[in-house]
Amino acid sequence: MKRLLFSLAYLFSFFSFSLAQSDSSLLKSLQDEIMLHGTCYENLRVLTQSIGHRLSGSPQAEKAVQWGLKTMREAGADTAWLQPALVPHWVRGNEWLQVKLPGSKGFEPMRMTSLGNSIGSGKPVEAPVIMVQTMDEFYKLSPAAVAGKIVFFNYRFRQDIINTFEGYGDAIKYRILPPVAVAQKGGVGVIIRSVGTGVDDVPHTGVTRIVDSVRKIPCVAIGYLGANRLEAACRQGGVTARVLTSGKMLPPVLSYNVIGEIKGSEFPNEYVIAGGHLDSWDVGQGAQDDGAGCVQSIEIIRAFKKLGIRPKRSVRAVLFMNEENGSKGAHAYADSAVARHEKHVLAIESDAGGFSPRGFGMDMPLEKKSIVRSWLPYFLPMGVYDFSGEDAGVDVSPLGKSGAALAGLYPDSQRYFDIHHTDEDRFDKVSHRELKLGAAAMATLVWLASQYGL
Amino acid sequence: MKRLLFSLAYLFSFFSFSLAQSDSSLLKSLQDEIMLHGTCYENLRVLTQSIGHRLSGSPQAEKAVQWGLKTMREAGADTAWLQPALVPHWVRGNEWLQVKLPGSKGFEPMRMTSLGNSIGSGKPVEAPVIMVQTMDEFYKLSPAAVAGKIVFFNYRFRQDIINTFEGYGDAIKYRILPPVAVAQKGGVGVIIRSVGTGVDDVPHTGVTRIVDSVRKIPCVAIGYLGANRLEAACRQGGVTARVLTSGKMLPPVLSYNVIGEIKGSEFPNEYVIAGGHLDSWDVGQGAQDDGAGCVQSIEIIRAFKKLGIRPKRSVRAVLFMNEENGSKGAHAYADSAVARHEKHVLAIESDAGGFSPRGFGMDMPLEKKSIVRSWLPYFLPMGVYDFSGEDAGVDVSPLGKSGAALAGLYPDSQRYFDIHHTDEDRFDKVSHRELKLGAAAMATLVWLASQYGL
Repeated sequence: MKRLLFSLAYLFSFFSFSLAQSDSSLLKSLQDEIMLHGTCYENLRVLTQSIGHRLSGSPQAEKAVQWGLKTMREAGADTAWLQPALVPHWVRGNEWLQVKLPGSKGFEPMRMTSLGNSIGSGKPVEAPVIMVQTMDEFYKLSPAAVAGKIVFFNYRFRQDIINTFEGYGDAIKYRILPPVAVAQKGGVGVIIRSVGTGVDDVPHTGVTRIVDSVRKIPCVAIGYLGANRLEAACRQGGVTARVLTSGKMLPPVLSYNVIGEIKGSEFPNEYVIAGGHLDSWDVGQGAQDDGAGCVQSIEIIRAFKKLGIRPKRSVRAVLFMNEENGSKGAHAYADSAVARHEKHVLAIESDAGGFSPRGFGMDMPLEKKSIVRSWLPYFLPMGVYDFSGEDAGVDVSPLGKSGAALAGLYPDSQRYFDIHHTDEDRFDKVSHRELKLGAAAMATLVWLASQYGL
Repeated sequence: MKRLLFSLAYLFSFFSFSLAQSDSSLLKSLQDEIMLHGTCYENLRVLTQSIGHRLSGSPQAEKAVQWGLKTMREAGADTAWLQPALVPHWVRGNEWLQVKLPGSKGFEPMRMTSLGNSIGSGKPVEAPVIMVQTMDEFYKLSPAAVAGKIVFFNYRFRQDIINTFEGYGDAIKYRILPPVAVAQKGGVGVIIRSVGTGVDDVPHTGVTRIVDSVRKIPCVAIGYLGANRLEAACRQGGVTARVLTSGKMLPPVLSYNVIGEIKGSEFPNEYVIAGGHLDSWDVGQGAQDDGAGCVQSIEIIRAFKKLGIRPKRSVRAVLFMNEENGSKGAHAYADSAVARHEKHVLAIESDAGGFSPRGFGMDMPLEKKSIVRSWLPYFLPMGVYDFSGEDAGVDVSPLGKSGAALAGLYPDSQRYFDIHHTDEDRFDKVSHRELKLGAAAMATLVWLASQYGL
């Protein structure tokens, strides 16, 4: 490992303390156990290929809960249990989009997906299409210009932003705001260029914002290539679209977070947790979003038990339910932690994909950040170097109010939004080594925090 | 880009100089041009899907040379030309492997690939199989134990080594040494567990070592799953294999490196070059190895010309021929550089895949390394942070003797050896953003070296 040891020494020279040899060797054996004998990749194969996608409230989500409990026990958790959460139950139903391009006689189908939580039209809606490039351009339109129209939001995901999560932050409003904004001006439908980095014809779903008091209209996303076709047609003018959506919000369903625990030897009521979310959108297989985070979290329990590591503080793996369209599981976990006076020292989330780890985002006070950054030399051999981010994750954020330090695994972000919320988010898009390396990085942070606190 | 700018500031604090604002903005526009308008991904689609794999001396390699020249001109090179190199011409021919497992009546086929440059048996060879785990274990065997046997080398690629290129360095001897070593002890064939990180049934080819004076025997690789089956069978004992290989070395063929150049404005006879290799093994599509490095190098020329960047030193993109089984193109380029008294300031190679860039390996004196490392702040926004490696690449290494500083793009290494030298090294294994980001990192280093020298 000349290159990496050299790298370690090189970057290490920026740090003013030395490693504890015993910690180094324990962490190396923990990392080796995961890279050589980790079961997270095979666990992910089962979750994604035997169960598949698993939107909150669906039968597959229920299967995933049972799978999670069984897998947590097989990993050797001292205790494993289900934590109830009442979750929304959105169903997509039948949907299609047809577009009549200028000069063409008939309508042609265009690949699409309804936006999550949107309420369907129930019957086909046909109307002329007008195109805008930005929200500002839309806001300048008069109600008269929008009334009776389907509005196409053609905003392009900014490929020049290197960190795609920053690009997502820039573009996400085009998935969240249009349904209400267009309905309020009398529009009858929304088509958006998918919020993603893909250069294919695959549409991206994801939650949008619906307001009870505002008329519900169809809101659908189309893929990159479809959007290019529609854009070109709109520049000529005279485009008509016909769209059917059937989204429904059914009564809430009782579902569960899955929790596995190793009891701490010295501070059993102090907790270091690692988690991902068990639910996914109702497309693809929910492999990178977020089966990866679930199996990585379980892997930490397995590796600790396999090596007989007894942490000073209690360690939990948490599979959160309903991150995608409600965060009910996240709030159920945080409320329970407060009610039981559980002191959460650190809560780590992996919900950015099982790609090669680059670092951790940290949502915590500066003095705690300094402690975590002082551990950098333990991470550099894994290529984990960037502790500068400040985002942790949606599922751990409710724990912040109870004083927990929050962290988010920060993997390489280049491929995530090519497949995020699409039919392409499948097991075959996951690298066994990248997935395990992310689990090893999380396990390293979990052990250090459970040993030394923050 | 909050997160990355924060990262920049954070790591930047380790450095004691400030950025030149004009350089920062030029480099940002160069990086943006590649991320937003880069053509390298579409160029790679043509090379891999319209031409496909392209072993030296093959008709596809000749097509690739013509494609390279045309593409280099379309990219806007001031001049583009072909540089002749006489290359070996190995052909695989018909090949198969059958294994008779203990207890089973008949032979069953096992997926395999001959090792590159190996000379085929021409007719089926049938013999008992003996298994060894390491070279040392093999060296301890007596000639009597090996005579008349097919030897199965079952060494496993070390998945615990995080940098897979280090793991490759550890395992590569199991692809290079066995054919001669086994023949010298009277063995009649070699089967190796593929040198790769894959966990599938896909075998990995790659060059092996043949010695004229030593008897030629079949030497083949099998995939991870096949090797697991054969290992289990060998532990029971009584395994027989039947193998046919047909590899032939035909007379050398006249082929070419493809070179595109932008003439330097101040030091036209000083050169900064970026290259990859145009040839590939005769499996898959040669996408990551090394179509990626070729299209990234061409992308640098395209982006410079598109933005009207006139470098002080001449910049070349070089598509080297015959990296895989002879390096004749690399030597032809270096010999020409010496003969023409071309002063090569820096030669950069991309032959580790078009994955997310992590850094550059540097094979150059310490004072030149210090200059390159002082440019780190220009690279950190791209997630390029590691300038600690010391490996550049096979194609640029002959330039070292002429005093050129050598560098190698160092991408994330986790996925490369899953597909390296296999049928799986295809266009669909390449990420458009990772490929472009690697090109942007190379373009940044090319511009800095062409502007400031080393």
